[in-house]
Amino acid sequence: MFIYQKVIENPGAYSFEITKLGVPALLSPVKGREFVSDDELIAFSSQVKNIERLFHLGTFPAFQKAGPREKIFHDPAWTKAAIVTCGGLCPGLNDVIKGLVKILALDYGVGTIYGIRYGYQGLSPKYRHEPFLLTPEMVDGIHELGGTILGSSRGNQDVSEMVETLIRHDINILFCIGGDGTLKGARDIAVEAMKRNQKISVIGIPKTIDNDLAFVEKTFGYETAVYQTFDIITCAHNEAEGAYNGISIVKLMGRDSGFIAAAATLANSVADFCLVPEIDFDIDGDHGLYAALNRALDKNRHAVIVVAEGAGQKFFKERSETKDASGNVLHSDIGIYLKDELNRRFKAEKKEFSIKYFDPSYLIRSVAAQGTDAIFCHMLAENAVHAAMAGKTNCLIGHWNNFFTHVPIPLATIERRKIYPEEALWKGVVSATRQNDYFGY
Amino acid sequence: MFIYQKVIENPGAYSFEITKLGVPALLSPVKGREFVSDDELIAFSSQVKNIERLFHLGTFPAFQKAGPREKIFHDPAWTKAAIVTCGGLCPGLNDVIKGLVKILALDYGVGTIYGIRYGYQGLSPKYRHEPFLLTPEMVDGIHELGGTILGSSRGNQDVSEMVETLIRHDINILFCIGGDGTLKGARDIAVEAMKRNQKISVIGIPKTIDNDLAFVEKTFGYETAVYQTFDIITCAHNEAEGAYNGISIVKLMGRDSGFIAAAATLANSVADFCLVPEIDFDIDGDHGLYAALNRALDKNRHAVIVVAEGAGQKFFKERSETKDASGNVLHSDIGIYLKDELNRRFKAEKKEFSIKYFDPSYLIRSVAAQGTDAIFCHMLAENAVHAAMAGKTNCLIGHWNNFFTHVPIPLATIERRKIYPEEALWKGVVSATRQNDYFGY
Amino acid sequence: MFIYQKVIENPGAYSFEITKLGVPALLSPVKGREFVSDDELIAFSSQVKNIERLFHLGTFPAFQKAGPREKIFHDPAWTKAAIVTCGGLCPGLNDVIKGLVKILALDYGVGTIYGIRYGYQGLSPKYRHEPFLLTPEMVDGIHELGGTILGSSRGNQDVSEMVETLIRHDINILFCIGGDGTLKGARDIAVEAMKRNQKISVIGIPKTIDNDLAFVEKTFGYETAVYQTFDIITCAHNEAEGAYNGISIVKLMGRDSGFIAAAATLANSVADFCLVPEIDFDIDGDHGLYAALNRALDKNRHAVIVVAEGAGQKFFKERSETKDASGNVLHSDIGIYLKDELNRRFKAEKKEFSIKYFDPSYLIRSVAAQGTDAIFCHMLAENAVHAAMAGKTNCLIGHWNNFFTHVPIPLATIERRKIYPEEALWKGVVSATRQNDYFGY
Amino acid sequence: MFIYQKVIENPGAYSFEITKLGVPALLSPVKGREFVSDDELIAFSSQVKNIERLFHLGTFPAFQKAGPREKIFHDPAWTKAAIVTCGGLCPGLNDVIKGLVKILALDYGVGTIYGIRYGYQGLSPKYRHEPFLLTPEMVDGIHELGGTILGSSRGNQDVSEMVETLIRHDINILFCIGGDGTLKGARDIAVEAMKRNQKISVIGIPKTIDNDLAFVEKTFGYETAVYQTFDIITCAHNEAEGAYNGISIVKLMGRDSGFIAAAATLANSVADFCLVPEIDFDIDGDHGLYAALNRALDKNRHAVIVVAEGAGQKFFKERSETKDASGNVLHSDIGIYLKDELNRRFKAEKKEFSIKYFDPSYLIRSVAAQGTDAIFCHMLAENAVHAAMAGKTNCLIGHWNNFFTHVPIPLATIERRKIYPEEALWKGVVSATRQNDYFGY
Repeated sequence: MFIYQKVIENPGAYSFEITKLGVPALLSPVKGREFVSDDELIAFSSQVKNIERLFHLGTFPAFQKAGPREKIFHDPAWTKAAIVTCGGLCPGLNDVIKGLVKILALDYGVGTIYGIRYGYQGLSPKYRHEPFLLTPEMVDGIHELGGTILGSSRGNQDVSEMVETLIRHDINILFCIGGDGTLKGARDIAVEAMKRNQKISVIGIPKTIDNDLAFVEKTFGYETAVYQTFDIITCAHNEAEGAYNGISIVKLMGRDSGFIAAAATLANSVADFCLVPEIDFDIDGDHGLYAALNRALDKNRHAVIVVAEGAGQKFFKERSETKDASGNVLHSDIGIYLKDELNRRFKAEKKEFSIKYFDPSYLIRSVAAQGTDAIFCHMLAENAVHAAMAGKTNCLIGHWNNFFTHVPIPLATIERRKIYPEEALWKGVVSATRQNDYFGY
Repeated sequence: MFIYQKVIENPGAYSFEITKLGVPALLSPVKGREFVSDDELIAFSSQVKNIERLFHLGTFPAFQKAGPREKIFHDPAWTKAAIVTCGGLCPGLNDVIKGLVKILALDYGVGTIYGIRYGYQGLSPKYRHEPFLLTPEMVDGIHELGGTILGSSRGNQDVSEMVETLIRHDINILFCIGGDGTLKGARDIAVEAMKRNQKISVIGIPKTIDNDLAFVEKTFGYETAVYQTFDIITCAHNEAEGAYNGISIVKLMGRDSGFIAAAATLANSVADFCLVPEIDFDIDGDHGLYAALNRALDKNRHAVIVVAEGAGQKFFKERSETKDASGNVLHSDIGIYLKDELNRRFKAEKKEFSIKYFDPSYLIRSVAAQGTDAIFCHMLAENAVHAAMAGKTNCLIGHWNNFFTHVPIPLATIERRKIYPEEALWKGVVSATRQNDYFGY
Repeated sequence: MFIYQKVIENPGAYSFEITKLGVPALLSPVKGREFVSDDELIAFSSQVKNIERLFHLGTFPAFQKAGPREKIFHDPAWTKAAIVTCGGLCPGLNDVIKGLVKILALDYGVGTIYGIRYGYQGLSPKYRHEPFLLTPEMVDGIHELGGTILGSSRGNQDVSEMVETLIRHDINILFCIGGDGTLKGARDIAVEAMKRNQKISVIGIPKTIDNDLAFVEKTFGYETAVYQTFDIITCAHNEAEGAYNGISIVKLMGRDSGFIAAAATLANSVADFCLVPEIDFDIDGDHGLYAALNRALDKNRHAVIVVAEGAGQKFFKERSETKDASGNVLHSDIGIYLKDELNRRFKAEKKEFSIKYFDPSYLIRSVAAQGTDAIFCHMLAENAVHAAMAGKTNCLIGHWNNFFTHVPIPLATIERRKIYPEEALWKGVVSATRQNDYFGY
Repeated sequence: MFIYQKVIENPGAYSFEITKLGVPALLSPVKGREFVSDDELIAFSSQVKNIERLFHLGTFPAFQKAGPREKIFHDPAWTKAAIVTCGGLCPGLNDVIKGLVKILALDYGVGTIYGIRYGYQGLSPKYRHEPFLLTPEMVDGIHELGGTILGSSRGNQDVSEMVETLIRHDINILFCIGGDGTLKGARDIAVEAMKRNQKISVIGIPKTIDNDLAFVEKTFGYETAVYQTFDIITCAHNEAEGAYNGISIVKLMGRDSGFIAAAATLANSVADFCLVPEIDFDIDGDHGLYAALNRALDKNRHAVIVVAEGAGQKFFKERSETKDASGNVLHSDIGIYLKDELNRRFKAEKKEFSIKYFDPSYLIRSVAAQGTDAIFCHMLAENAVHAAMAGKTNCLIGHWNNFFTHVPIPLATIERRKIYPEEALWKGVVSATRQNDYFGY
């Protein structure tokens, strides 16, 4: 991936420290675990050629290893923790909440855990959303439910107001579960609290169903989301096969990156095209989608197109220049755009065809995390609690080379990870779809 | 239901005969079964009060019982059968195809079974869709697949052309699996063949996922469709709960009747509103949807609206009178209409809210039939073969009071079944949603 | 079915009345419904030949139609209802509980509803199981859970003790959800209460996953159970195909009747044998299972055997005569018996083979009811409440010819329904498996 | 994990080379990929403290990176490849087969690909299992099916015979998909072929649903298996809750390691006990399972026990010493053993209880791989083809620190990976179940 090369070549440019509220001085009440020290690091690259080069450079990029610390900063007896979930739904939100509550209450003995309602709105008094008090008993079965028991909202609130809410309620630990915007909000809260000399640990748990955080190799919910696409792709294939020149267009998540679209295509390899933001394509011309689609139809009499929501955004720029009054919704929806554009061309050529459009995003986002993804949520939560109790702040829990890591929020939000066309995932997609043959490359 | 009363009161008005191509003279090769005679009838009503009244009237409405006949009309050794699937996908199409092929080949010894491709198009030479030859081995695993292995198309073709295709290929049995339009096509083929003195049995297997055929109490695919809605309603509920004043609108099938919407609402009783074509509603006013929705939100802070695609069609009539230039697509889609209208009102009132729209139709239609629904498909197919071999034509296989029946196609296509507001299904919906309280009735 | 013929021939022998505690005198608070009078009856048979014969006999067998009555017996303001679930798990228990609570509380305004814990044990003071108080809010989401929130137990308790518990707590309505034994217990409670001149309505909701109640054409949970078998049969088929002469034996529920086994076989028609209690079979001899299995293996190199738990019980009688010390468990389990016996014969003949045994019963019983089955549960509950409030007792809610019915418990427990080999279900199984060819019939 | 420490401390002890049949001299026909050179290595450890230590030792343990090579050894035009699947079913077998066929045929242009039937038996002439010829069209839909289209068998065959079969049919590439025993067989075939100076690439694709290969961090099928356990654990919980002192025992795969049991417990955290081979336990005594179970029942009135099949094997050693005549089957099944032993103790104490036993192994093994697991299968297959075409032999495709690797088979089969009690997975299990509290530790 792109970011990867940059770190290897210039590791110093990505130098960030994990912020600590102070020196941890209390013995951890956690029993029977191997404690991890702050000195333990996970190498950025596990490729020997990179390790050798970086060793010679002297600045060896690495992440701090997450895990329970022998000494903690916050006194559990005085600790009041709060949990907030922000942004769109994602499988695993309730698993993370359950994990946080269980570890806080049962491993550390924290007695007061607030569930903040409806995202950052719940930290702003003007919305009057009263928080819950969360207990281990309350959260016992929530891992079987999709969504978030806390509710969510989009957007940030006034930082100063939010920090005042925390202070007013003596909250010294805040867990922020959310995407890019949420994490930036968490960063601002952490910084503002420090400015006011408040010892508040703000720990992020990154939530992006698109799995495209630059310094985190895997985010929760993604795996379940990919599983969830399997039957949808089968349905799209059945619909396409059911008509002469039947075409199914499946729009999947992925505003900036096409990981879910690519994974869905490869996991249930009956699709003929996968369109992602990272790979440019045209509609017209000999190498365009319309010509390619016609080649696919000539061969199979049906075709399935998987398209990430962020693919082909160039079409909307062109369009908005020419058409001023056009609504926002139609313009940004590549799925509907493709449906309309292909429709128009087929009709103009008086071809027999049939297009069906699938937009299953909410049916993917809102299910419960399962299997290994649910385990991942639990472990993120566990490590978030360890980080918080040890007095870290302005950091999030990442995963790198099979270890959970501490990642400074300012680092994690620098850039998004993208599909790199030369890598195995995209190569697999091209091999499974054979779309390059249709595009004429 | 409405039709019901009319039959009870004036049974003579619904007098139709099952058409026979001739006198069945060959002994059936079917072994080990109880044969059914053409005299066996299934009463229209099983309510004693109706039975008594009708007995006195002298014309007792009843259906001919389906099943294997002791004597058959078509000689299996000379029989060439054909199967065609038309219209939109529906769970169970492949089960019906599999059942037809297995019973024809293994129970009757019919050697030639054509799979007509892409609906009635496959009977018109101008489309050049070559038919398959279907064998029991080929269809062995197709019940696990959604869709139809034959492909489908909408609309009818020239009747004369289709009958000529049948004659040219010596096809003496045609099974037409499809909805209202398809069945009318089947009727026309049957009538045209008879006019030309061709001994062609045309047997319909009614396919309406909406389960709204007037003289057939249950159609295949409906049951699986209702099962399929369960997780979708849960997802919609999760999305609604996940936001402050979160609203999920789920559009389900049901152009003329709301059976699927009502069943989905009752099966997973977390929805707050169910809107169907049979029950009128307004958007504005004290008893309107907007007011009702606000009452629901005031109580629960979220709401789920299930809406059948044919609900609220009056809004489009009004609209098209006042707004001339408006596009076709937006007008006929009640789901998007509601989303837009509610959106506008909430915004105008500057309320905090969030609407999510679900249109899962293709994800319901295209799955494989399961469980008791798959069994139902098998039995429809079996009875269709018995009817065909016995030389019936212009009839379809229905189900009434727990028996499979022969229904003349002209009768079956008279009228559609609708939800009757006083009956248990709708009462259950009202009870489960408590929507009348919200509407203020 | 057998019982059917007997009723047609001698309807007088099955004459039972629905017991009423007294004359209903209060106006029902239920709004907007069509009330049903006690005179409305549903004919036992909807076949015209039977109707004609029975009319002439003068005693026309019919069930009382269930539904809301205009006048009720119990005063909602003074009513205390109780719900008890008994016997093994079955999909839909929680739907029925939810339905009962919602209708009692919201339609009738009953304020006190006890959830009796762990079956009839909860009515016996010696077990000290404290009851719950059930509210509409508490039961709101339970339809998504399998099992029963009340817990269950097998077996009856002392009738006198149970009635005293009801009296002590002023309970005037008891809903008993369970099978044959439970319903007999409910009958005894009803009779004992009447003897003591207590106005207690005891209403049964029949629960038999095997769907084999004689005067009830469909019981809740059966449909979901059949859906649940689909993937299990696929897995069994995959395992069988995965080995040379691979054999999968799937034992399904069905102690006295083979409905689930037959339905599972027909719904996912990849099985080669279906063995049920109603159809005798041998293991040895030219028409025996071993020879048949070898014929199937010679053809396909693998075979799937579905066996109902009550099939082949004759083998255990023989065995226990010869082997005295043998344990109970092994003897009554036909699945393990077949596995062992086939194993022994293959080994003796030094054949290459591999047998896998599936016993998925608990994975079927313990899931939540879905789709149309969940709706059926709701309607059973609704009708049970109507019956109870109207002062019926010692009856259960049945379903017949598409109507919900009142069935006297003594009638319902006379005999079990069985697969009738000449009927469509079994014919379909024989046709789908082609097992008669293998057995050499 | 144990093996880990040993490698870190004494990396030289694990020095193995990847065997090459000769110098690759042909240009690869693979287009548009970044080629990987044999010098590219993936570090054994990504922990900086280990990297530093190892660098100073001079022997830095690392795996050869897998991927397409610029020059290949086998000429595609002359290549005949064969695929064999061995041992028990595992999700993903068909994905791997599909991937191998697609990449061989479409990326390399290999024209002849044999599917060997029923494991190594298919390479021994005495079984007379004729191979398939596999084409890309044939395998197109097999990823949706569980099991293996090739069939499988357990155990190895005579190496000399198998090599002769390969030679007789001019097969120069053999892919062996299987577990420990299969891989040892693959190793023997590779060595024997080299002895005979035959240029045959033998590439292993490791299949262990238990995910316990020492030098491979993840094996295919494991992830799907863990997903598959989710509903089973829910069912077990429903059954346990449904009875007073209800106990469900769920036996899961894991002969030598408890990864699936631990993962299942953590993924659906409603279990109370997780018993694995790596952690010793007793049944009696104050810290024994019986006492622990009673503590759990006193708290919750129900309990779920998840047990790996290899847990508590010490009980069988003791038993077989005392009881000589006892059968093999009962002895080695820890699930049934626990059921019987607990049963006996509860009965002796005359406690009210109910035990249900779940053995879902075949329902987990035989499903199709989904989601990210299916992608993993595709990539394993792709890398296996690259390794084979490049002339590697006696090696398998592994995965380490996010890269696909070449692992010499003799290395991979040295030892099995086990749960390390101090690590996060087991800690999570202990935290989710709270079983140490019950055991009194």
